[in-house]
Amino acid sequence: MEDEISSFFESSPPQKNMEEILENLNEFIKLNSSSQGGRRIVCVTSGGTTVPLEQRCVRYIDNFSSGNRGAASTENFVKAGYAVIFLYRRGTCQPYCRSLPDDPFLECFEFSDKTNIQVHTSHLEAVKMAVMDQQTAVAEGSLLKLPFSTIYEYLQMLRLIAEALKDVGPCSMFYLAAAVSDFYVPWKSMTEHKIESGSGPLDIRLAQVPKMLSVLRSNWAPKAFCISFKLETDSKILMEKATKALRKYKVHAVVANELSTRKEEVVVVSSSGNVVVRRECDKPESFVEDNLIRLIVDRHSTYIKESHN
Amino acid sequence: MEDEISSFFESSPPQKNMEEILENLNEFIKLNSSSQGGRRIVCVTSGGTTVPLEQRCVRYIDNFSSGNRGAASTENFVKAGYAVIFLYRRGTCQPYCRSLPDDPFLECFEFSDKTNIQVHTSHLEAVKMAVMDQQTAVAEGSLLKLPFSTIYEYLQMLRLIAEALKDVGPCSMFYLAAAVSDFYVPWKSMTEHKIESGSGPLDIRLAQVPKMLSVLRSNWAPKAFCISFKLETDSKILMEKATKALRKYKVHAVVANELSTRKEEVVVVSSSGNVVVRRECDKPESFVEDNLIRLIVDRHSTYIKESHN
Repeated sequence: MEDEISSFFESSPPQKNMEEILENLNEFIKLNSSSQGGRRIVCVTSGGTTVPLEQRCVRYIDNFSSGNRGAASTENFVKAGYAVIFLYRRGTCQPYCRSLPDDPFLECFEFSDKTNIQVHTSHLEAVKMAVMDQQTAVAEGSLLKLPFSTIYEYLQMLRLIAEALKDVGPCSMFYLAAAVSDFYVPWKSMTEHKIESGSGPLDIRLAQVPKMLSVLRSNWAPKAFCISFKLETDSKILMEKATKALRKYKVHAVVANELSTRKEEVVVVSSSGNVVVRRECDKPESFVEDNLIRLIVDRHSTYIKESHN
Repeated sequence: MEDEISSFFESSPPQKNMEEILENLNEFIKLNSSSQGGRRIVCVTSGGTTVPLEQRCVRYIDNFSSGNRGAASTENFVKAGYAVIFLYRRGTCQPYCRSLPDDPFLECFEFSDKTNIQVHTSHLEAVKMAVMDQQTAVAEGSLLKLPFSTIYEYLQMLRLIAEALKDVGPCSMFYLAAAVSDFYVPWKSMTEHKIESGSGPLDIRLAQVPKMLSVLRSNWAPKAFCISFKLETDSKILMEKATKALRKYKVHAVVANELSTRKEEVVVVSSSGNVVVRRECDKPESFVEDNLIRLIVDRHSTYIKESHN
């Protein structure tokens, strides 16, 4: 497995602006490790990764993920006092922006004259949250946003973050909500130019993306608290798959969710048993992440205590 | 070819809210056909189409397209007096919003107190354009925005628009800037559930999407002026491919563009010869679409005159 992983990275296109990312990352971690005896830091991954089919990329395979789970979870982690490194797919839902309409500039604002802009009262709360709460979280050093698009960018940045968080130890967490591609076209076997159409069906062979979860747990950040996700469309195989992932990757818990009910409920699968977490249906403005993050934060507290004993 | 096209539509998942789309479309066309002796109406398509790999879609193939071409062209068409039906991929660049930063709610605004929002002076012009110009275009009936994501949605809506525009005749135009999938998985041969990973490489066979361009020209809107696009990554084959498309689909012009230079120049290929259109490099705020649409509008005027003779 280790040589599969190193050959994946060796054959990946190098990540642009890596130094700048590392500098921002170290500054963010230093700020939060020294303040108030050291804050807990969580890396939340969000959105889907793309798999280019051509080096000069015109077509790619994508994983459906709106980013709502990652955005809502980030808001709850910041509320619980965490500093969040938000590793997100460009263009997906942002923390504090979930209640904005799809077309915000068409629907939320009005200019009363050439310079004075107003917010429609019906969207005032949504815009205030998107502007004030988000800016406060970033300004207070509670939120660092790092965008990705391809599977190559995602895995190179995940490794970078894991190694940068190494010294934070048990107070660091990985909350891996991103929809990571299982299959890809190795960069070196990829055609350079746009695949030509017009000559009948197209056969594509995709290799398996090496599972980085085990190396994240064993090498990159062995002391971090680690939560992974398992999404299935078929509820009959969901729990079996989530339990298998728990054992195989030795994560602390797997959040199992089914595509069609994922906004209403999830199941937290761990060695201490399975816990069903639901949205509070009697509160229309509540989200399943409100209860989910409460549970995850408690488990993290127990983990930190046990690792200090 | 005709039965390939009908079997494509018969096996496609039905388009949701079709009646509502048709109602808005007919209202928009009626408003613009009766006003001032009838306005020219252009359908601009923009962004890439997705090809689902599973019926309960988790993974899909996507075509890279930011939507900048379609958005910039729409602004220029409205300026030239056209009414624009903007058929766009959800989440891509919107008309009048091109100069907004990637993260507008984090970067453009500030609340001076609980209700009064201000725009940072550095972004005032960009926000004013995104709010005022866009709202004016929609309010004046010059812009109708219709979103799509999948290849099924795109082609069903393109057919709907073409048939709705039939009576507008030579005053209607199709400006097909969208990056439409060449390959797809026929819905009926698609697996229902998420493709399982963990068992070695994945082989996918993709069928060719029937080319709708010829049926758009022959049946759906035979009198409309029709512009298609050809994007290549290899400049050596671009012109040959564009010329071939011109003859094969009998469109009025093909806009040929190469991926790495597409923002600087395009070549308009037509039976009257090839014209290179460039961005005015001495004007930093100019775009290649400013000159491109001027040329296309002229050609459309000639086409209208000739069809009335």
